[in-house]
Amino acid sequence: MNKDKISIMNLDGASVSEATFAAHETRDIVLPNQNEHVAHVAIDIGGSLAKIVYFTSSANRKGGRLHFKKFETEKIDECIDYVAALMADARLEPRNNNNNLVLKATGGGAHLFYDKLKERLSGVIIEKEDEMDCLITGLNFFITEIPYEVFTYNEHDPEPMKFEKKANDLYPYMLVNIGSGVSILKVTGPDEFSRISGTSLGGGTLWGLMSLLTDATSFDDMLEMSKTGDNRNVDLLVGDIYGSDYSKLGLKSTRIASSFGKVFKKGVRQAQGKFQSPDIAKSLLFMVSNNIGQIAYLNAKQHNLTRIYFGGCFIRGHPITMNTLSYAINFWSNGEMKALFLRHEGHLGATGAFLKHGDAKSLIEMIHT
Amino acid sequence: MNKDKISIMNLDGASVSEATFAAHETRDIVLPNQNEHVAHVAIDIGGSLAKIVYFTSSANRKGGRLHFKKFETEKIDECIDYVAALMADARLEPRNNNNNLVLKATGGGAHLFYDKLKERLSGVIIEKEDEMDCLITGLNFFITEIPYEVFTYNEHDPEPMKFEKKANDLYPYMLVNIGSGVSILKVTGPDEFSRISGTSLGGGTLWGLMSLLTDATSFDDMLEMSKTGDNRNVDLLVGDIYGSDYSKLGLKSTRIASSFGKVFKKGVRQAQGKFQSPDIAKSLLFMVSNNIGQIAYLNAKQHNLTRIYFGGCFIRGHPITMNTLSYAINFWSNGEMKALFLRHEGHLGATGAFLKHGDAKSLIEMIHT
Repeated sequence: MNKDKISIMNLDGASVSEATFAAHETRDIVLPNQNEHVAHVAIDIGGSLAKIVYFTSSANRKGGRLHFKKFETEKIDECIDYVAALMADARLEPRNNNNNLVLKATGGGAHLFYDKLKERLSGVIIEKEDEMDCLITGLNFFITEIPYEVFTYNEHDPEPMKFEKKANDLYPYMLVNIGSGVSILKVTGPDEFSRISGTSLGGGTLWGLMSLLTDATSFDDMLEMSKTGDNRNVDLLVGDIYGSDYSKLGLKSTRIASSFGKVFKKGVRQAQGKFQSPDIAKSLLFMVSNNIGQIAYLNAKQHNLTRIYFGGCFIRGHPITMNTLSYAINFWSNGEMKALFLRHEGHLGATGAFLKHGDAKSLIEMIHT
Repeated sequence: MNKDKISIMNLDGASVSEATFAAHETRDIVLPNQNEHVAHVAIDIGGSLAKIVYFTSSANRKGGRLHFKKFETEKIDECIDYVAALMADARLEPRNNNNNLVLKATGGGAHLFYDKLKERLSGVIIEKEDEMDCLITGLNFFITEIPYEVFTYNEHDPEPMKFEKKANDLYPYMLVNIGSGVSILKVTGPDEFSRISGTSLGGGTLWGLMSLLTDATSFDDMLEMSKTGDNRNVDLLVGDIYGSDYSKLGLKSTRIASSFGKVFKKGVRQAQGKFQSPDIAKSLLFMVSNNIGQIAYLNAKQHNLTRIYFGGCFIRGHPITMNTLSYAINFWSNGEMKALFLRHEGHLGATGAFLKHGDAKSLIEMIHT
C-alpha cells in the first residue's frame, strides 16, 4: 500500500451499518464511495482484548466496509491467525497492486508481541503507533465523520439513547478510555492532548472480581446477570446506617454508603457462598462505574472540561453501565458536564492506527476543511 | 453531670499512654490533672463499628484516663451492655454527684438505634450529635491538645512514623474519614466545615470483598495476611501489557494498570480457587487505599488544600495502608500535599461527641486561647 493508494480513501456518505448484528458485535461502517481497495490492517492489543480494524471492498467494486473485531489477548495466536488470513486475502485481491502489506499496531501488545507478530506475519511490515495518539485520532474520526455515532444515555427518557449532532466546538474535551485499566486524556486540539490521569479500577477489575465471585462464564453472561441483581443485598446504604436520609448533608437513604458493606456484617466465616451472583454482579458494576464516573468528574473539574467521552471495551453498550456513568457525571457536576458514548467505543485505538497509514489522517482533514 | 462539673475538665499535660497495649487496641489518653470525675459516656455508631469513649479516675484521685473501645455494630447489644455497665459504675462512683447520666450519641446508629438505646439504658439521657460536627471537634482536639498524636508515614525512612509538631496554621485542612464508606470534609475554621465529597469504596468494601475472597477470619487476620502477599499475581502491571515501561507517559512497568486484571486471563471457570488469599488481600488493600488516596488528592486540588488528615477505623495503624495512602497523595500531588495520620484515628467522632457534653468544647478553647 503506497501513499497514492491511500490518498483516495473516500469518507463521503460514511455511515454505521444497519444490517443485523449480534448484540455483542460492533457494527461495520459503510463507505459507499471508497471504490479503491485498502489492504492494510490495524490492531490494538490491550491488556485483556486485542481489537482489529480492516476494510473489505464490495463485490460490485462500488464502496466497501470497515470491520471491527475483538479477540482476548490471552488468545493472541488465534488473533494473529486471523490477521494472517486477512493478509493472505489481500495478496489474492486483484485490486491490490502492492505486495508491501502493512499491519499498523498499537496498544501495549504492539510492543510486548512485536517479535511474535514479525515472526508469524512474514512479509508484512509492522508499524508501531503510540496508543494515546491512536485513541485520539480514532475518536476524532468517529466524532467528526460518522453520523449517529455519538450519543448520551438517560434511562429515564422513553428513548434513553439520544444521538448528538456534530459538535461545532469540538475542543476541548476529555476522553475516559476504559480498558483493563482506565486512561484519562485531555484533548485541546487535533494533535494536542495529554494523559492527565487514570485509575487501576477498570474493566479488568470488574471482570476479575466477577470471575472470582460469581458463576458467570463470559463477559456478556456477567452483564446479563447484573440486570436481574439487587445490589442492596450486599451494599450498605445510607438508610441502613441512619434508618433514614441524612438530610443535613443531602444524602438520601437509598444512596450507597459502602459497596459490599453488608457482607462483613454477615460474619467472615459465613460470607462465602451466602450471596447471590446477580446481586454481586450488580454491586461490582455499580462500584466500578460510579468510581470511574467520579474520578472522571474530578479530573474534568480540575481541567475545566465539560464534554466527557467514554471509550474502551468496558462499556459494550450495556445500559446499566452507561446509565451509572451518566448519573455519576450528572450528579457530581450538578448537570454541568455531559457523558458521551460511542457505538464504536472499543475500537478507537485500532481505528486511529488504521487511519494513520500513509497520509490517511491528514487527507481526511483535507477533505473536510 | 452539669455544666459546672464539666467546666473543670483539665487537659494540661494530656498524653498518649505509653503502657503496653495489644496491637489492635487504641491507647488511652492520660489526663494527669483531671482530678474531678467525669461520668458521661460517648458513642459513635457507624455502619460497621461502634466506638466508645469514656473517662475513669485514678484510684489515688489524681488524674484519670480517656478510654477508647470498639464493637462491631452487628453486636450492638453487647456494645449497649458495655455502656450500661459503665453507667452502673458511674452511679456507684462516690465522686459522681449527679444522677442525670448522659450518653452522647453520634453516627448513623445514634438515629437507627435511638429507641433501643432509650429502652436498654433506662435513666440515661441520650443526646444525639451530628456526625460530621463530632468528627471535626474530635480531630481538632487531637491535633491541638495531644502531643505525639499526628504523624506522617514513609516506609523508606528508617523511622517511618514521624510525629508532627503542633501546626501554627491549622486551617484550612481536609479530613478523609474512612469508615465503612468514606466522607471527605473541608475544614476552614473551628466550626466551619462542609462535606465536599465521599466514596462508597471504603473499609466496608475492603472487609466485604476480603470476606468473600480470602480465608481470613478477622480484620487483623486480613491485614496480617496482606503483608506476605504478592499482588503481582492478580494485578495486571504496565509491564505485563507493554513488556517494559510506557516511557513516553512516564508509566513505570511496575505500576498497577488494572487491579485484578490478571484474574480473567486465567479463564472464568478456572478463576475461583486458583489465587492465593495473601495475594488477593494485598491487591484489595492496594486497590481501596490507592483509590481513596487519588480521590482525596483530586478533592484537595479542587479546593486548594495541602494538609490531608486520614481518620476512621479503616487504617488501624497498618503500615501498608498508611504507606499506600501517603504514596498516592505524594505521587498525584508531586509532593505538594501531605498525608497525616492519627493514633486515635478511629475515635474522632466518639471523642468529639464526648467533648460536646456541657461546654467542654468551648472550655477547651478557653484554656488554650
